[in-house]
Amino acid sequence: MKVKVEGKVLNYKNIWFEGGKLHFIDQTKLPFKFSIFTSNNYRQTAAAIKEMKVRGAPAIGVAAAYALAQAALEFEGENLDGFVAHIKKASSAMKGTRPTAVDLFNAVDEILKVLEKGRNVEDCRELILNKAEALAEGSLQACRRIGANGEKLVKDGSSILTHCNAGALACVDYGTALAPLRLAHSRGKKIFVFVDETRPRLQGALTEWELQNEGIPHAVIVDNAAGFYMQRKEIDLCIVGADRIAVKNGYFANKVGTYEKAVLAKENNIPFYVAAPMSSFDFSIKEIPIEERSGEEVLYIGGRRIFAKGARAKNPAFDITPLEYVTAVITETGVFKPAEL
Amino acid sequence: MKVKVEGKVLNYKNIWFEGGKLHFIDQTKLPFKFSIFTSNNYRQTAAAIKEMKVRGAPAIGVAAAYALAQAALEFEGENLDGFVAHIKKASSAMKGTRPTAVDLFNAVDEILKVLEKGRNVEDCRELILNKAEALAEGSLQACRRIGANGEKLVKDGSSILTHCNAGALACVDYGTALAPLRLAHSRGKKIFVFVDETRPRLQGALTEWELQNEGIPHAVIVDNAAGFYMQRKEIDLCIVGADRIAVKNGYFANKVGTYEKAVLAKENNIPFYVAAPMSSFDFSIKEIPIEERSGEEVLYIGGRRIFAKGARAKNPAFDITPLEYVTAVITETGVFKPAEL
Repeated sequence: MKVKVEGKVLNYKNIWFEGGKLHFIDQTKLPFKFSIFTSNNYRQTAAAIKEMKVRGAPAIGVAAAYALAQAALEFEGENLDGFVAHIKKASSAMKGTRPTAVDLFNAVDEILKVLEKGRNVEDCRELILNKAEALAEGSLQACRRIGANGEKLVKDGSSILTHCNAGALACVDYGTALAPLRLAHSRGKKIFVFVDETRPRLQGALTEWELQNEGIPHAVIVDNAAGFYMQRKEIDLCIVGADRIAVKNGYFANKVGTYEKAVLAKENNIPFYVAAPMSSFDFSIKEIPIEERSGEEVLYIGGRRIFAKGARAKNPAFDITPLEYVTAVITETGVFKPAEL
Repeated sequence: MKVKVEGKVLNYKNIWFEGGKLHFIDQTKLPFKFSIFTSNNYRQTAAAIKEMKVRGAPAIGVAAAYALAQAALEFEGENLDGFVAHIKKASSAMKGTRPTAVDLFNAVDEILKVLEKGRNVEDCRELILNKAEALAEGSLQACRRIGANGEKLVKDGSSILTHCNAGALACVDYGTALAPLRLAHSRGKKIFVFVDETRPRLQGALTEWELQNEGIPHAVIVDNAAGFYMQRKEIDLCIVGADRIAVKNGYFANKVGTYEKAVLAKENNIPFYVAAPMSSFDFSIKEIPIEERSGEEVLYIGGRRIFAKGARAKNPAFDITPLEYVTAVITETGVFKPAEL
């Protein structure tokens, strides 16, 4: 992604692994300060995911895979059972960070699978490192292909609503929901993006920051105004990401507010697309756990209280949208109507 | 309404007129500081309406009526034509404050009507003062009757969603949407109120402050989460106010986001009520003008920027909800299904 640093436009990935250290753009500092957070071990990476320094389903999947590579690197000795126990302990820590996005669970399970193939510690370590790199590279390529598949759906001159941040900052690079928009813009299509501010954590500010860096025309709106612009037919299509697509259950989880926008899009006959890699699919049938975060995320903004002393808030971080509200899911392997999934 | 001041619970109206001065609770200071703003003349009252020191359709209607009483009081001399011209100038100033709520226009027109009956300046002045007092008292009584009519719709044990602030702070006292809830609570019904925070101006903080003062159980939620709780059937009914009910057009205007909640309520088979006095009705067929306020209301909270430098926002203050989404309108004269209006 393009990032303006001290007047210069540079290219950055959101997340990369180098010499056993995991680097990523610290999203708790954006959009005011561009800074790179460096995690030295899997415990720091787990903490960073919990604190949402790194966030977005694909990004935390890749971060979890790299965290297990960090765990593999820090293990000392040649005892394979000890190594496996260490990796499993780290896996549990990673799985305990955030419950809703499935990419993280899928990535951890992929890493655990390669353990079965290793004959000794060194072998396993190399397999884990390779697998983590493959997952990161796979995620990046998936986003590029989502961009290519989704770009065809974005007509010249169209206005697009997006909710939360499903951009480069939610992935290794490029984004899921924003990938088709980047590509449409770079191919010269005139598009305009309505950016839901996405309370409580204002991930719209991340999307706004990305679009501003890329020079894609856009405006921020409060989440309450999305329906207003849909009703006026000023929005031609909606694209959002997904934290977990539970195909067998017939619904997907994404940032709270997604369900509202999907219902409004259907009511106004506006196409509603979900852009997500296959790593966000869950083929089990268990219910998606919805993370309930601290009410303080609602009651405070930037450390400043916005409600009276004594006020209490409920704060579900995600919601569930039945696939009947979805026009199609844009994946790296193609664009599928819900019935085709 | 109950107000806790320095540990004591006192009773306050939101707005009252005394000795030519208009007093009201300054809502730009709430919920952090309870303070009374005093306006000395109609120009100060007009400015206070623009700045939303006083807000809410019924409250700004009453404030505009009192502003014309202030204009009547400040006029010197006995020239009736001069007096009428002065009142008309003041009327234009009041009508230029905020465009969407119709109560203000209705109140100003009611005042202008009495001018026709006065034989001299003193006569007209007295008629205007009496009319302003009558409108304020009428507004108060309308809210009480809305409370009585709406309370029957609130079952013991129910959870209610409300959007924006249609409480005592939006009226002379008591409220429109909150009136049935106050009464239900005072009659011992166990209710729980979901308070939409109502971005961008967070009028949910006013509702939260009122409910906290009254001891009515409640929680704040972000506007994005209303759909989540409706989908889970944790909300039994919705009650909102109205800035203008355009009966002949078949829709009503209210705080932006109302349309979203109404669509979601219908989708989830949850009753959606509008509580508003007859002063909020508009029987003309002209389109409702939607106030577009500064994008800075979105980009800043409490003087603090929440988006990157260079970000732009669109900020419609109201939206339009077709009456087909409304179960019934609760007025002082009864509860009416849209078809009965």
